[in-house]
Amino acid sequence: MLTLFQSPSSIARAVMIVLEEIGAPYTSHRIDFTQNQQSSAAFLAINPKARVPALVTDRGILTETPAILLYLAQCHPTAGLAPLDDPFALAQVQEFNAYMSSTVHVAHAHRARGHRWVEADDTATLTAMRNFVPKGVKAAFDLIENSLLRGPFVMGEAYTICDAYLFTIAQWLELDGIDPADLPRVADHRARMLARPAVQRAIERSVA
Amino acid sequence: MLTLFQSPSSIARAVMIVLEEIGAPYTSHRIDFTQNQQSSAAFLAINPKARVPALVTDRGILTETPAILLYLAQCHPTAGLAPLDDPFALAQVQEFNAYMSSTVHVAHAHRARGHRWVEADDTATLTAMRNFVPKGVKAAFDLIENSLLRGPFVMGEAYTICDAYLFTIAQWLELDGIDPADLPRVADHRARMLARPAVQRAIERSVA
Repeated sequence: MLTLFQSPSSIARAVMIVLEEIGAPYTSHRIDFTQNQQSSAAFLAINPKARVPALVTDRGILTETPAILLYLAQCHPTAGLAPLDDPFALAQVQEFNAYMSSTVHVAHAHRARGHRWVEADDTATLTAMRNFVPKGVKAAFDLIENSLLRGPFVMGEAYTICDAYLFTIAQWLELDGIDPADLPRVADHRARMLARPAVQRAIERSVA
Repeated sequence: MLTLFQSPSSIARAVMIVLEEIGAPYTSHRIDFTQNQQSSAAFLAINPKARVPALVTDRGILTETPAILLYLAQCHPTAGLAPLDDPFALAQVQEFNAYMSSTVHVAHAHRARGHRWVEADDTATLTAMRNFVPKGVKAAFDLIENSLLRGPFVMGEAYTICDAYLFTIAQWLELDGIDPADLPRVADHRARMLARPAVQRAIERSVA
C-alpha cells in the first residue's frame, strides 16, 4: 500500500492524478501548510526537505515529483503513462518534467517561497522577487505554449505523466498574475484535464 | 554520433563525464558564455532555453541534465551507470538528480543568474540574492553531506550517474563561498571523482 503526503493545490496533486489514473490503492495524508506542518518533527522524519510530495512505499520513501511520477509509470506499465520501451521518447518525457520542476515551478516559487533564496526578513527583496513572478512564469509558459505542448497532450496523442505535471502547475496561473487567455493552448489543455474523472477525484481527495 | 553543446565548468560537465565513462563517441561543441553565445540565433535554434547541455542525437535534441543522464545510462546498459532493472532504486537515482537540478543548482544560480527571477537592472535585489548563496547552497549540501551521500558513492557501492552530477556541482563550492572542509564527505567524494580518468578526460575536453 502506498501513502502519499500531500497538500491541496501543491505539486503533490500531479502525483495524486497519476495515482488516480492508474487506479492504484493509496492513502492520502494531508500536510497543512497553514499550520506549518511540513516543518513538524513528525514530517521532517519522513521528508527532511520539508516538502510535499512524499510517497511512502513498501521499499522506502520517495520524494521529488519527477522521480515519483516515473516510478509510478514504471510500476504500472499497463496504464501506459510513459513510453517505457523507448529511451529517447522517455527522455523527452523526463526533459519536460525536469523543465517543470527546475524552471517553471521554481519561477512560481519566488512568489511565496522567496525565503529559500534570500533572508526571510528581507522584505524588499522578497517583494521584488514576487513582483517579477508574472513575467518569469509567463516566459516559461510561453515556451510551453509555443513549443513544448504538442497537443492534444504534452507528448502528442499519448496521455502521459507530463500532462498531470503541466495541469497542476497551470492551475497556478491566475495566482501568479497570468491570464490563461494569453496561453490558449495551455488553457485548453487545462480545461480538458479538468474534465477527466481521475483529475476530479484527485482534487476531491486532496482537500478531504 | 552524438554532439554535446557544453560550456566549461557548467552543468554540462556531468554529461561529459558520463559520456567519457561510457566511452561513447561524441563531438563536443563549446558555447562561449563570455560571448553570450548561448543566446545566439544559431544556438537558440538548438535549445530555445539558451542553456547547456544540449545533446544532439540521431532522433533529435535533448536538453535538461537529469533527462540526458538517464538517457545515456539506458542507451548503454552494460556501463552499469543506473539500476535500470529496479524501478525503486532507479527512482532513488532520479530523486537525487531532481534534487540536484531543482534545489542545489537553483540555489547556486542565484549568484550569477539572478536575472532569471528579478529585473536584470535591479542591482539591489540581485546583490541580496547573491549574498544569500553561501547560506542557501550550504543548507542544500548539508543534506547531501549528512544524508543523501551514502558513500563511497552517492548510491552506496555502485557508481552511477548521480556521482557525475554531484561532482560537477561540488566543483562550484568555493565559487559559492563555501569551504569544502565543512563538508568532509562531499570533499572526499570530489577528490576521488577527480582522480578518475574519465573525469579528467571530460575536464580536458570541455576546455578544448
